[in-house]
Amino acid sequence: MNRRMIFYMIGEIVILEGILLVLPLLVSFIYWEETSIFAFSATIIAALLFGFLMTRLSKPSNKIIYAKEGFIIVTFAWIILSAVGCVPFVVSGEIPNVFDAFFETVSGFTTTGASILTDVESMSKGMLFWRSFTHWLGGMGVLVLIMAIIPKDSATDSGRAMHILRAEMAGPIIGKLVPKAKDTAKILYIIYFALTALEFLFLVIGDMSLFDSIVHAVGTAGTGGFGIKADSLAGYSPYSQWVITIFMLLFGINFNLYYLLLLKRFKPVFSNRELWCYFGIVLVSVGIITWNIFPLYNNFSDSLRHSSFQVAGIISSTGYSSVDFNQWPQLSKNILFLLMFIGGCAGSTAGGLKVSRAMLLFKLIQKDVKHLLHPRSVSSVKLEGKTIDNNTLYGVSTYFALYMALILGTFFIISFEPLSFETNMSAAVSCINNIGPGFGQAGPMEGYAVYSNFSKAILSIAMLLGRLEIYPILLAFYPRTWTKK
Amino acid sequence: MNRRMIFYMIGEIVILEGILLVLPLLVSFIYWEETSIFAFSATIIAALLFGFLMTRLSKPSNKIIYAKEGFIIVTFAWIILSAVGCVPFVVSGEIPNVFDAFFETVSGFTTTGASILTDVESMSKGMLFWRSFTHWLGGMGVLVLIMAIIPKDSATDSGRAMHILRAEMAGPIIGKLVPKAKDTAKILYIIYFALTALEFLFLVIGDMSLFDSIVHAVGTAGTGGFGIKADSLAGYSPYSQWVITIFMLLFGINFNLYYLLLLKRFKPVFSNRELWCYFGIVLVSVGIITWNIFPLYNNFSDSLRHSSFQVAGIISSTGYSSVDFNQWPQLSKNILFLLMFIGGCAGSTAGGLKVSRAMLLFKLIQKDVKHLLHPRSVSSVKLEGKTIDNNTLYGVSTYFALYMALILGTFFIISFEPLSFETNMSAAVSCINNIGPGFGQAGPMEGYAVYSNFSKAILSIAMLLGRLEIYPILLAFYPRTWTKK
Repeated sequence: MNRRMIFYMIGEIVILEGILLVLPLLVSFIYWEETSIFAFSATIIAALLFGFLMTRLSKPSNKIIYAKEGFIIVTFAWIILSAVGCVPFVVSGEIPNVFDAFFETVSGFTTTGASILTDVESMSKGMLFWRSFTHWLGGMGVLVLIMAIIPKDSATDSGRAMHILRAEMAGPIIGKLVPKAKDTAKILYIIYFALTALEFLFLVIGDMSLFDSIVHAVGTAGTGGFGIKADSLAGYSPYSQWVITIFMLLFGINFNLYYLLLLKRFKPVFSNRELWCYFGIVLVSVGIITWNIFPLYNNFSDSLRHSSFQVAGIISSTGYSSVDFNQWPQLSKNILFLLMFIGGCAGSTAGGLKVSRAMLLFKLIQKDVKHLLHPRSVSSVKLEGKTIDNNTLYGVSTYFALYMALILGTFFIISFEPLSFETNMSAAVSCINNIGPGFGQAGPMEGYAVYSNFSKAILSIAMLLGRLEIYPILLAFYPRTWTKK
Repeated sequence: MNRRMIFYMIGEIVILEGILLVLPLLVSFIYWEETSIFAFSATIIAALLFGFLMTRLSKPSNKIIYAKEGFIIVTFAWIILSAVGCVPFVVSGEIPNVFDAFFETVSGFTTTGASILTDVESMSKGMLFWRSFTHWLGGMGVLVLIMAIIPKDSATDSGRAMHILRAEMAGPIIGKLVPKAKDTAKILYIIYFALTALEFLFLVIGDMSLFDSIVHAVGTAGTGGFGIKADSLAGYSPYSQWVITIFMLLFGINFNLYYLLLLKRFKPVFSNRELWCYFGIVLVSVGIITWNIFPLYNNFSDSLRHSSFQVAGIISSTGYSSVDFNQWPQLSKNILFLLMFIGGCAGSTAGGLKVSRAMLLFKLIQKDVKHLLHPRSVSSVKLEGKTIDNNTLYGVSTYFALYMALILGTFFIISFEPLSFETNMSAAVSCINNIGPGFGQAGPMEGYAVYSNFSKAILSIAMLLGRLEIYPILLAFYPRTWTKK
């Protein structure tokens, strides 16, 4: 166990966060929000001091780390990122309760977008920007960002980088785009930045102000979903809503495909099964919901727009809303509930189980059925033309069991709150899949203010478990991980 | 594919059902219910004729069957059993709608106990007896019964019997008690009959009439749960309720353990992990619910009795109720909801996922976590002292994925009904796990009358899939099963 390296990396993370906090500080300066300026400055100074101390005191002689250090670093990095990230909210007094502030920051970094705020419009611009910006940072991964921007001696970098990439990025199979993990991280961030900038451009030429465009572009990119209005996106023009619908869907697609498009390799993109499956699910869901909500709007284009917006919002795990879908007929709500489980494509910034995992589970079932019929036959499972080895395959089904146990376990614990079945069940599913809004008393226009501090802490942990896909956190708190061997 | 043998076995099943229908006919004679006498007589004659024709026309020369014939026989046997079994309800006019009658009969045989009746107390005694008696038949399995009572030439019997035993009985691992499957079936039925008789004795010395004691004894034994009063068991004395509580729990225990007790082999019984786990879950649930519902009854003994009754009713998948638990605080309802997933022990008459499956899933997760830490280590999983091979182990996790997909799929289809989230979700979970009552509009005092014919058909299929643990039905309708190879 390379403990020095763990402390060192966490120190680096805190320094990076301190530097990134300069952006919301700038926003606070532009709008001259004095308490925010103070809160951000104080946090930046504290973060930099803490980070420098950590990196100095634990300068490692041996930079080699293995999978288990990778898990521990990622877990504690995310916890500390959230702990530091919530300081400005508390110091400024805009979210005075520490549980609330931590929940809100975890919700930001994990790109959940579940909010405890009851009056978001009274927040300062600086805080609103920071809140949405955490989505952008958490979407692709903060450690991936470090990897992309900080120069490293290449000898020790490669192994270490891959362990972290795997632990922080979501999906059943993480491939490298290019041989070096560092270059992969760089390419991913370039694509991510370019797509965000493109969305910003589309938004700013519509009815959105410069500030609103930035906030919504970064919030969509990370598939986060923190709104800056009480009614989320309901108050903006249909044009803006359509732009956001399209970009929510785009950020739910595997980023490898964008890289292939840049290389002009169109064939593997158009033959990508996960992509077709993703759009198929979207199409069917939009179709049923448009028909189901038609009587509410008596207008095809409104029904289509709202159903598309909500379907894109949920499947991509963003969670913006163009309408209070809590008021929709139960069928539409139930479809949205089911979409929460599926989530976006692997290798995207979206949460959820991921389309490719669902596909692999389906293929695994098929394989087992075939095996029951012909016990001596050997069949292999393929995805995107590649044979999936048994370890990966069964790993997916074990992960699914763990994931369902997490959902039911979280549901059980928050059941001590006197809220409806629908509220608690949807809150657990929504937080673990990093969606944001639930139904009932945790609906898109209600938020999570209704929960107690205890439940907010539980849901914060659930969001982290969902974002890091459970295993890293489980391993970091597994006693055997810490014993020498 | 030995088609003649499939038809032959189904013919045998229908003959057996015709013979068994004599029992409710006798009840109808005793209470002199003329329409019921006519309905049962007509069904018996039709069943015997149909059965004799089937067995004569398809007398097989080759009696050897393989796993796939086993799946097909079990699947179609259960469908035809239900189709024939619902005839008396329709003919007598007591349940005139065919969808209702089929739902009720499937609910009986699968030991679900979900009812579409709105006025159960107006039913004739003959029909009430038949309805509960289907629980008893379905609990241990009708094909297992055939195996136990019909003499066969021993040469061809053994292989055939085991395929059917495996397909009809529930749980991840089906072991033979004794070398011959036929003797295993006999022993199981003897224990089953003895326990039922014991419960009957305990009930009849209490405040229950002879008829009520029989009906409730067979209903508990099969872990079915059809009540014969509008308020299920609420009107009986605390004594009767406690007797039923204890027997519901007893019928949720692996029958192998009773066999071991008969052999005076106490050690493996008391060291049975699944049993301890089962009682542990019961104890914790009863504890929390007793505390949670205390304010409703203001009396410890009532709170304890009602919480024990409902916990035993749900975890054993019986579904009787001593109180309208739909009126309980949400926490208690949510615990009952979670218990629906777990179910009883493997090798019992209970439904649900089974405690041992949950334990294996937990061990599988542990194994994968260990593997992530030490990728080169090889660890084996043990249950009850025996090493579980990887095929069984991963089979459990694939089954779990299939099971969850079935629940979510059923929930999606019945969501076209304009009912609450809680109603549809609990109905899907309750039917698939063969519990009976759900929550909301499908609560213990409401039943399933609220559903349309279409949804009743879907839920009937869901109950069958749950009872036969999905694979047999999936295989019977899988095109490749029917192709020659």
